[in-house]
Amino acid sequence: MSFNSREFLKDMFDAALTKVKGAESLIKCLPEKPKGRTIVIGAGKAGGAMAKVVEDNWSGDLEGLVVTRYGHGVKTKRIEVVEASHPTPDEAGRNAAKRIYKMVQGLSKDDLVICLISGGGSALLSLPAPEIPLEDKQAMNKMLLKSGADIAEINSVRKHISAIKGGRLAKAAYPAKIVAMLISDVPGDDPSVIASGPTVADPTTFEDAREVIKKYGLNPPDSIKKYLEEAKEETPKAGSKYLENVTVHMLATPQDALDEAARFARSRGFETIILGNALEGEARDVAKVHAGIVKQIKGFSQPIKKPCVILSGGETTVTVKGNGKGGRNAEFSLALAMALKGMEGVFAIACDTDGVDGIEDAAGAIITPDTLKRGLDKGLKASDYLMNNDSYSYFKAIEDLIITGPTLTNVNDFRAILIL
Amino acid sequence: MSFNSREFLKDMFDAALTKVKGAESLIKCLPEKPKGRTIVIGAGKAGGAMAKVVEDNWSGDLEGLVVTRYGHGVKTKRIEVVEASHPTPDEAGRNAAKRIYKMVQGLSKDDLVICLISGGGSALLSLPAPEIPLEDKQAMNKMLLKSGADIAEINSVRKHISAIKGGRLAKAAYPAKIVAMLISDVPGDDPSVIASGPTVADPTTFEDAREVIKKYGLNPPDSIKKYLEEAKEETPKAGSKYLENVTVHMLATPQDALDEAARFARSRGFETIILGNALEGEARDVAKVHAGIVKQIKGFSQPIKKPCVILSGGETTVTVKGNGKGGRNAEFSLALAMALKGMEGVFAIACDTDGVDGIEDAAGAIITPDTLKRGLDKGLKASDYLMNNDSYSYFKAIEDLIITGPTLTNVNDFRAILIL
Repeated sequence: MSFNSREFLKDMFDAALTKVKGAESLIKCLPEKPKGRTIVIGAGKAGGAMAKVVEDNWSGDLEGLVVTRYGHGVKTKRIEVVEASHPTPDEAGRNAAKRIYKMVQGLSKDDLVICLISGGGSALLSLPAPEIPLEDKQAMNKMLLKSGADIAEINSVRKHISAIKGGRLAKAAYPAKIVAMLISDVPGDDPSVIASGPTVADPTTFEDAREVIKKYGLNPPDSIKKYLEEAKEETPKAGSKYLENVTVHMLATPQDALDEAARFARSRGFETIILGNALEGEARDVAKVHAGIVKQIKGFSQPIKKPCVILSGGETTVTVKGNGKGGRNAEFSLALAMALKGMEGVFAIACDTDGVDGIEDAAGAIITPDTLKRGLDKGLKASDYLMNNDSYSYFKAIEDLIITGPTLTNVNDFRAILIL
Repeated sequence: MSFNSREFLKDMFDAALTKVKGAESLIKCLPEKPKGRTIVIGAGKAGGAMAKVVEDNWSGDLEGLVVTRYGHGVKTKRIEVVEASHPTPDEAGRNAAKRIYKMVQGLSKDDLVICLISGGGSALLSLPAPEIPLEDKQAMNKMLLKSGADIAEINSVRKHISAIKGGRLAKAAYPAKIVAMLISDVPGDDPSVIASGPTVADPTTFEDAREVIKKYGLNPPDSIKKYLEEAKEETPKAGSKYLENVTVHMLATPQDALDEAARFARSRGFETIILGNALEGEARDVAKVHAGIVKQIKGFSQPIKKPCVILSGGETTVTVKGNGKGGRNAEFSLALAMALKGMEGVFAIACDTDGVDGIEDAAGAIITPDTLKRGLDKGLKASDYLMNNDSYSYFKAIEDLIITGPTLTNVNDFRAILIL
């Protein structure tokens, strides 16, 4: 049977996805049955799928509630799965957050909380401190996003006006034993960053949060101003007794997806190079750099020899100037096709591992040496589509979108280039 | 003696530069003394330096003229070196081009023409076909640059209205023996692209040139319209008798600079990875990708283990939005420092190999783990400088510009990142 480059790339992506759904690791990390109750809570795009694995592999009693994104729900028997809005929180998410918060209060040290955290959890599990009205928290959030503060600065404020973020969920559950299981979608896989770290130590302080307000000249709602000034209850810090019963397991990371893809490619005889699991930059420029590396491999057998696979992950950005449809992975793919100009023997796939590349119904796209030619045959000029940020429409027209539906996990972008 | 990262990077850049000045290769490629006359002509940023090597290593008679960029002149004894304007041609360049064109006419097959070509040669050796007034050629050039045509399309027109480009210089010198020595500053090192290929076959035709005019709805001056329509004298094609006495030697390429830097680094115990000799993309985004690879090396020993050096070449772009001073290599450096956020043990250098990073008096810049801190100590916020495209001023203030003066060669950008 002849080698099919498209199928190879799709199979490699599937292998990576299966790995980072984390089911295998999750089963391994399940703790002993506790003397007391078992509560399963969680939030994130993988929430439903993780809950299903827990209840399917748990012999004792359990109860619980997880919140996931609309469309990411899973049919479960014992753990309730609620769907809510992401990235902008909605009423469904807020109600779920309230119920989860309540569910972990009043537990004893004989009880067990299994906490399932994945990308998107921060928006899905959003609850202000009791002293702060919801509208005020929302206003503060908008102010922060417009302020020019970086994400670490924004999060130091967010964590200090929340009832859940920055380890406060763990504090609420104290003295129960907490087993937190995480799927990382952030560069560096820092548990205090994934879903704003509800069960781990917060390295930031009220003082940090106030500094951000001052530095960017922000004028928060009165409730928040007062709350930050009074600073009654700091988020749990490293060494805090509230965290002494917490165990954190990292079930899956962007690196795991790339390592699994590399294993898959090597098993089929290809050399591999992993450039990075956290590449950032404008999608079309990141594509140009990848194209430059492809040319080097073809022309100089550097940094590796073909046949080979280049792998990278991370999160590119798209500065939208047009009014087309297209996620960052489709835009990367189109820009890559343009930079490669139909180069023979080069195929690539770029997808968001959650299955949603900006637009619900595509995870990303695939390119082949005739991506541009097939577009031209249909009267499509790739450069026009790229200029209009309309890569989704381009790949839809030439039938090269990758459609997975929600994958029920999320470890950010996945890119693979096959060079024959 | 302790290892000095700065000095190491500078020494590595110097080693690469020495290699791509091409003197060693040039001497090896010098032909036998001819029966007849020896004429040395040439154009480009390396023109003066190359002429000097020729006359210092040539035992017989010779005469000649080369044109180079202002500031790139070299004191010679027998070959006249003229300085002219680049990238916009001026009167000095046009006069030199006329004289060179005249110099190679009327030669016999016993004569030898040594043609020294390097980056910038296209603008420095600019002469319209006799039927076309200079103003018309200039107007056409402006029209092309604004048209949206790509560089290959633009060059197909340029070559067909020139007296020199696209192999016409070789035709003028026929039947003399021609030895062309090239230093490449273009991706792919195609001799028909370097300085618009005055001594090599032109793959484009009058028909191609007319197609470009039509495709972009251009209205050329009458002299050019007539010249392109009459199409009396096609540029020499592969197999043309006018090219049968031409030998082309590639003396130095962007790849040579990277290979030499890699040798240098390996000889001092560092692993190396060459990402590509022709990377393109917005400088700040190319920097982010490089930073992502650095993080992967530090975190996962992929694609190689530290201590190591990442090398790349090519030509990044800067979309100017601010009004500061700064070339693409300084901008790359500042963006890299910001993406690395003071990461320990990471140093980098980024320079234009011609010694001119947009601004005359700096080749580029160097960064260290405390690049941002030393800026802050002087009250400079890196992000403000990057936003204002003012990287030159930033590095000038912290005294980390690399100043070489004109290097008398050009193989495009050179970037090296040292990870300890």
